[in-house]
Amino acid sequence: MEVKVVKRILEANELIAQENARLFAEHGIYVLNLMGSPGTGKTSLLERTLEALRGRWRIGVIEGDIATSRDAERIAQHGVPTVQINTGGACHLDGNMIRGALGEMDFDGIDLLIVENVGNLVCPAEFRIGEDDKAMILSVTEGEDKPLKYPLMFQVSSALLLNKIDLLPYVDFDVERLRENALKVNPRLEIMEISCKTGKGIERWIGWLEERAKRKKG
Amino acid sequence: MEVKVVKRILEANELIAQENARLFAEHGIYVLNLMGSPGTGKTSLLERTLEALRGRWRIGVIEGDIATSRDAERIAQHGVPTVQINTGGACHLDGNMIRGALGEMDFDGIDLLIVENVGNLVCPAEFRIGEDDKAMILSVTEGEDKPLKYPLMFQVSSALLLNKIDLLPYVDFDVERLRENALKVNPRLEIMEISCKTGKGIERWIGWLEERAKRKKG
Repeated sequence: MEVKVVKRILEANELIAQENARLFAEHGIYVLNLMGSPGTGKTSLLERTLEALRGRWRIGVIEGDIATSRDAERIAQHGVPTVQINTGGACHLDGNMIRGALGEMDFDGIDLLIVENVGNLVCPAEFRIGEDDKAMILSVTEGEDKPLKYPLMFQVSSALLLNKIDLLPYVDFDVERLRENALKVNPRLEIMEISCKTGKGIERWIGWLEERAKRKKG
Repeated sequence: MEVKVVKRILEANELIAQENARLFAEHGIYVLNLMGSPGTGKTSLLERTLEALRGRWRIGVIEGDIATSRDAERIAQHGVPTVQINTGGACHLDGNMIRGALGEMDFDGIDLLIVENVGNLVCPAEFRIGEDDKAMILSVTEGEDKPLKYPLMFQVSSALLLNKIDLLPYVDFDVERLRENALKVNPRLEIMEISCKTGKGIERWIGWLEERAKRKKG
């Protein structure tokens, strides 16, 4: 019974996500859905990304949070159009929430839209929002068994950012085992080691993102 | 529409949780629901707890995971009865899953049941399972703004374990600000700083847990 309800919700979401995707395509906007656990570094990566792409791409941001507009305030300081979605308890963004936020955006003013999802390693992976790519962040403090225990997000993501590698000397974390586990659930996953704190690895991430965005723009 | 469905699911869950609670009370079992993000240290805390309480309490464990039985295998090595629930994608445990697992437990053989929930800072907080207390773990790598951004779990928990304090020298984390933020959303929250790695603070946690369990046993 509960499963049926969930299935119907996902089907309805898929239709709206497809509409969003058509709208993005019409305006030539590449859309990235950024996901990961709470505190894994999503907003920090976004800040690094905005700094790196300044003057090269016109970027818009949608911030998804259950409560508060703290992340949106952090991002707006970078001078990019930012829309905050407060989900009011819901554990993920869905297509309809994004559609609602689009009314606040000037489509002709952006080439690249980055959506920061609610901090959650589970639910956001189930709901498409009309994105071109999903990217996920895992931090080295979370343990290398996570791809096996939470497989869906690793399966649906195009890129995995392994963040906080500056903490590797202080935690028990085996990067090679993480790679093995992640590639076991998704052999096509692009895995990049980064530190939003020191900036290490950010250049490669920016290269990947620009490559994907350019491919969309044609 | 979606909200109505969710409300009906929560009401149905509450009835089952109450039945579970009655069953636990009949057998004099104290039940703790342990929650937190992926990789925050739930299984490590459980292992520390089992070591500390060995020979003093008869403990049973229910492990909730989306996939794999890795945590249950870790715990079973401590020689306590352990039941694994694989939620098959679902992002939290609910009353019905616990009821299903109870058939695998010898109630007369345990005084204290610890349930490790799915790693998720959002959804598990919404579903009662018949527990006496909820306790949550946050690690210092997750940031001190989390009580404001994910308030529900902090509101419904009796205890907050602030884990990985051994990493404090290497991360930007303000313990006092975390305390302020957490107490703002739940003034009655018992906050304990711990390190599952070094063992620091574990004694206080064990004292708190035994005090709660004794109160239940009368």
